[in-house]
Amino acid sequence: MSDEIKRIDRTLVHKGTIIDYYVDTMQLPNGNEAKWDFIQHNGAAAVVPVTEDGKILMVSQYRNALERYTLEIPAGGLNAGESTAAAAARELEEETGYASKDLEILLSIRTTVAFCNEKIDIYVAKNLVKTHQHLDEDEYLNVGAYTLGELEEMIFERKIEDSKTISALLAYKVKYGI
Amino acid sequence: MSDEIKRIDRTLVHKGTIIDYYVDTMQLPNGNEAKWDFIQHNGAAAVVPVTEDGKILMVSQYRNALERYTLEIPAGGLNAGESTAAAAARELEEETGYASKDLEILLSIRTTVAFCNEKIDIYVAKNLVKTHQHLDEDEYLNVGAYTLGELEEMIFERKIEDSKTISALLAYKVKYGI
Repeated sequence: MSDEIKRIDRTLVHKGTIIDYYVDTMQLPNGNEAKWDFIQHNGAAAVVPVTEDGKILMVSQYRNALERYTLEIPAGGLNAGESTAAAAARELEEETGYASKDLEILLSIRTTVAFCNEKIDIYVAKNLVKTHQHLDEDEYLNVGAYTLGELEEMIFERKIEDSKTISALLAYKVKYGI
Repeated sequence: MSDEIKRIDRTLVHKGTIIDYYVDTMQLPNGNEAKWDFIQHNGAAAVVPVTEDGKILMVSQYRNALERYTLEIPAGGLNAGESTAAAAARELEEETGYASKDLEILLSIRTTVAFCNEKIDIYVAKNLVKTHQHLDEDEYLNVGAYTLGELEEMIFERKIEDSKTISALLAYKVKYGI
């Protein structure tokens, strides 16, 4: 079936700050052409930071796209040439002020496959060591520790909606049988 | 903290097929300005269709953004004025050829909060009744039934990566204690 839908053109519309926007021209099996959106994203990493007493460190930050604060696991885009494991460790320390040398891959997600190639590799970090929070210029967030039970309740009350956070927390629960 | 980062302009760059792309100008608390990407999306619905013998109906479709097939739960964008419950029921029937009058909300996700407002309401559908598949002109997909155990394995083997699918399947497992 892979030859049924064929891309015959990809045109850059705008190079953005963290994404680039393209319009693709697709040839459909019935011969018709269609314009499809494509968002190029360079990838990201996220981390479930688990404290000694089994709590999860979460960050609350203002999200311009939603015009409100959201509660999320620490995450961020990859720097040029950076592995997702290195990015996860870096974002953990920058956003929470804790470092870890004990990162294990949990799962990978594609955030929104209908129009974007963004991939996020999600790690679990244990044996956290206190260092210093050091945020980007455009980053303002609060850190808090929650039990998995509290976070699970917030997911089913639809108070936590961020897809990487839901995927990560539920995968952590299921994988480790907590 | 909500007044710390302030949007001072939003400019439409391109109206796409399923998304619109904007560039926002933000004023940071230190007085600097920054350009942030914003993708407007009208929202979507998805559904975990559970068969009489407890299997999940999944769809495999070619995703241009990833240049490969992905295995996902049935989903689609909202039509104008359509509720997410109606859209979930419609997409279920269009994509799988099964209808259900027994839909229950499971959770809501925001696919990628750093730059997009897309929200997907995800339902569980039971008591499936065979009708007819009727796909959109640009939609080509295969339907299959899987056990939750098979799907869970594919998530942790990183063969299923779609965020709405992972969030939905793990939430279904955790909520119903399967």
